[in-house]
Amino acid sequence: MDRRTFGRRMLVGGAAAAATGVTSLSLGAVNASSAENPPRTAPAGGVVRRLRMYAEKLADGQLGYGFEKGKASVPGPLIELNEGDTMHIEFENLTDVDASLHVHGVDYDIANDGTRMNKSHVEPGGTRTYTWRTHAPGRRKDGTYEPGSAGYWHYHDHVVGTDHGTGGIRRGLYGPVVVRRKGDILPDKTFTIVFNDMTINNKTAHNSVNFEATVGDRLEFVMITHGEYYHTFHIHGHRWADNRTGILTGPDDPSRVIDNKICGPADSFGLQIIAGERVGAGAWMYHCHVQSHSDMGMAGLLLIKKPDGTIPGYEPHHATGGTEKRSSTEETSSTEEKSSTEETSRTAEAGAAEHQH
Amino acid sequence: MDRRTFGRRMLVGGAAAAATGVTSLSLGAVNASSAENPPRTAPAGGVVRRLRMYAEKLADGQLGYGFEKGKASVPGPLIELNEGDTMHIEFENLTDVDASLHVHGVDYDIANDGTRMNKSHVEPGGTRTYTWRTHAPGRRKDGTYEPGSAGYWHYHDHVVGTDHGTGGIRRGLYGPVVVRRKGDILPDKTFTIVFNDMTINNKTAHNSVNFEATVGDRLEFVMITHGEYYHTFHIHGHRWADNRTGILTGPDDPSRVIDNKICGPADSFGLQIIAGERVGAGAWMYHCHVQSHSDMGMAGLLLIKKPDGTIPGYEPHHATGGTEKRSSTEETSSTEEKSSTEETSRTAEAGAAEHQH
Amino acid sequence: MDRRTFGRRMLVGGAAAAATGVTSLSLGAVNASSAENPPRTAPAGGVVRRLRMYAEKLADGQLGYGFEKGKASVPGPLIELNEGDTMHIEFENLTDVDASLHVHGVDYDIANDGTRMNKSHVEPGGTRTYTWRTHAPGRRKDGTYEPGSAGYWHYHDHVVGTDHGTGGIRRGLYGPVVVRRKGDILPDKTFTIVFNDMTINNKTAHNSVNFEATVGDRLEFVMITHGEYYHTFHIHGHRWADNRTGILTGPDDPSRVIDNKICGPADSFGLQIIAGERVGAGAWMYHCHVQSHSDMGMAGLLLIKKPDGTIPGYEPHHATGGTEKRSSTEETSSTEEKSSTEETSRTAEAGAAEHQH
Repeated sequence: MDRRTFGRRMLVGGAAAAATGVTSLSLGAVNASSAENPPRTAPAGGVVRRLRMYAEKLADGQLGYGFEKGKASVPGPLIELNEGDTMHIEFENLTDVDASLHVHGVDYDIANDGTRMNKSHVEPGGTRTYTWRTHAPGRRKDGTYEPGSAGYWHYHDHVVGTDHGTGGIRRGLYGPVVVRRKGDILPDKTFTIVFNDMTINNKTAHNSVNFEATVGDRLEFVMITHGEYYHTFHIHGHRWADNRTGILTGPDDPSRVIDNKICGPADSFGLQIIAGERVGAGAWMYHCHVQSHSDMGMAGLLLIKKPDGTIPGYEPHHATGGTEKRSSTEETSSTEEKSSTEETSRTAEAGAAEHQH
Repeated sequence: MDRRTFGRRMLVGGAAAAATGVTSLSLGAVNASSAENPPRTAPAGGVVRRLRMYAEKLADGQLGYGFEKGKASVPGPLIELNEGDTMHIEFENLTDVDASLHVHGVDYDIANDGTRMNKSHVEPGGTRTYTWRTHAPGRRKDGTYEPGSAGYWHYHDHVVGTDHGTGGIRRGLYGPVVVRRKGDILPDKTFTIVFNDMTINNKTAHNSVNFEATVGDRLEFVMITHGEYYHTFHIHGHRWADNRTGILTGPDDPSRVIDNKICGPADSFGLQIIAGERVGAGAWMYHCHVQSHSDMGMAGLLLIKKPDGTIPGYEPHHATGGTEKRSSTEETSSTEEKSSTEETSRTAEAGAAEHQH
Repeated sequence: MDRRTFGRRMLVGGAAAAATGVTSLSLGAVNASSAENPPRTAPAGGVVRRLRMYAEKLADGQLGYGFEKGKASVPGPLIELNEGDTMHIEFENLTDVDASLHVHGVDYDIANDGTRMNKSHVEPGGTRTYTWRTHAPGRRKDGTYEPGSAGYWHYHDHVVGTDHGTGGIRRGLYGPVVVRRKGDILPDKTFTIVFNDMTINNKTAHNSVNFEATVGDRLEFVMITHGEYYHTFHIHGHRWADNRTGILTGPDDPSRVIDNKICGPADSFGLQIIAGERVGAGAWMYHCHVQSHSDMGMAGLLLIKKPDGTIPGYEPHHATGGTEKRSSTEETSSTEEKSSTEETSRTAEAGAAEHQH
């Protein structure tokens, strides 16, 4: 199956990303050169970027991060880096309480910790620049191996409600960070799924968080857990490697291939799947496999279409989860899960949980 | 120590498997050729098999899967595949409620999902053929590496009680699936342990689920979790690699070797141990290490005998778990944990949780 | 940055370890020979050692293990072994209830199980010698690969309160075991963190368990969970490899690099970090990331000093966790987290949770 989306990433990763309306940031991409339409891979990093980021109250009382005023979302927008990149984030707190930006995985000095204890939070109306650095793996002077920054990480508030940001996280102040290594395979689309307490991306059970793709798309999921409970993340009909990239490195990689994974608050991992590979199109459930959680609605759909746009056997109005669950393609037309056939405009319109490359 | 069970697998994997009475299915095996009694290894797959499977109500009101009418068990019988095999399972629902067969890890199209949403469940008295496919690892056309289907997977109902099968799973509708890669080391015996809510294999605390082996046996455990709670699986005196096979691939395998592992609902993993290796015979406990769970009886015994059949220091009537726990070798003579010195007849008699190769 | 502690380990690992006052035991170390101040690495094992160990009641009613009478601590002292070592532990039970010493990961026969069922516990006032053996990896006669004993393990009571030692563990009867492989990189300091129910090292929330180090120190953490709850272990500004050693083996190691990990009772893992590497000095939080747990005080500080001894932005009396948390450097001068500038005397004075090499 041809990869339909070839070249899209360049639009996002290049000049388009600097334009208004982007809800995610990609720091460029390169094309690998080989046989039959090889996947693009991440370039070496080393770029220094500046980014504006806002925390603000949403219409429904939740809080969100966004790259533009008035465009905050839950989860916050995807931030992509390549190992070696530096990101200066000018963070403005538009909420009426102290808030911060605390990040996992990347390098930051203690003044960028995003905690009250280290006085690195921001008062209402205030601004603070957080600097995140990343680095490639290599050898230390003493000969030992230093790992690189690559990983599926995340950012969140560490101040609202409690000194650990319990109130901020509960209300939506969190988002994904992906740091790529030179040569890492780039996806066609990135989806973010956050199991936050008993919600997915802070959506209540009657609002299913669905994702759309076409058979053959290389999909990336950033899976983050927050809040109070443990969960198990399961996708029907697809599986991934339980390692750094979610992709096996080759026949010698001893990692377990799984389709279900236990996770607890602040755990994060990433995975890539080829939509419908060996299983075809369909309305494939993903859900928390803790039985009461799925029954209460911690479930959504990965809607994988045939190239002609149809999904075999799928009736949009059928319940996916508990008996009270209503999910439909109409609902996926909301801001959060908007889908568009106009690919170039899609990135700008897509919500927080979807990142079109 | 000689491996006592050499050749047994051929009986099960060959013609005998098609006879009546089998509670597990093996798709053949090969012998490796090398030094001193090397272990048998899995052959390449590619076989197409047909299997009948039934869901039915058990005498105690629980539900079970079985390969023959009237022989359902909890957990359901082990289904073994080699990468490349296809399995057509003619599933008949003998219960009085809608039920299904949903599987993890293997390839199936959306019509074989086993969910109500995808109309792939079966009404009482109805029959439906589920097709599971598996594949070996290899290269995609674009040069990327595709993982194979090998893994320790499982099947379960997705319909009884709720749209996620919470009632079916609670009452016993689950079982193990092992997909092997060519060259994977084959065990002498396979044991299935399912931590389902606060039970082991749906047995209440006063019925300890024990397993018997002799020092030197290569034992395989398929460990599955179901239900509502997280658990930690622990075996005394033995440990395994936290990777795909539960066996280290060699000195370069960076996987952690463990004897305790957190797991949540629908997680599954496999491991192989040599019974009593470096520690000898004994009544070795295995249990959930969440303290209240073990205290309430989530514990059993791995009874590892000397070649003469004795177990040092073991008194069958001593409690293994909480104060109210009664466990004895007499109880292990029940259908579920039956042990026999007549090896050829044992497979047929062994219960759901034990698979003699 | 030079490694300041070069040579200290030899003091501990050599004759000094046999003297009175040691709270941990190291079985020697070797220096690697290469470029610029390479880290010391573990030697081959094969040593047979004898050790006395006591269980006793502490002043506050808790129970602890110790190498000397009157010096028990929570957690118990670190026991280090190199693969191939044997340890005979003469265990004396100075408490007024039956108690035992059960260990994870190493080789022991059933008479050393430390369980009531196997009659391997000790009555009040009684003594029993437990023998632990370890082995290097290698090939079995049948050609298969046998893993070695190396790992981050632990010991605990299995008898007090219930037949699973729930009461003993709750009151403090647990401690760390590290088994090293020849060539494993040795740390400058080892810290033990036990998430036991809702405590860290059985300290209540207003007594923060802090650790001190200087930028550039190679720190090792042994992280153990006990009790009833799952947790997620997180450190600010530092990360580790999710594999056997917590250190990536090199560019081909596919392990995930993480800064947050879910864990359940009796899970244990180890990790090494270079204090302040790429992030500098600071008061770096570590905490359980389950939000209610951190809010209730499951948090402490990794106080990483500049070479001049200062910590930028650190005010000792600021809360680290919940609003009721008081943590200060003064409190870290208690027996448990004592720090001293006299390095040679420090090992003897350091409490249970810190092991100076």
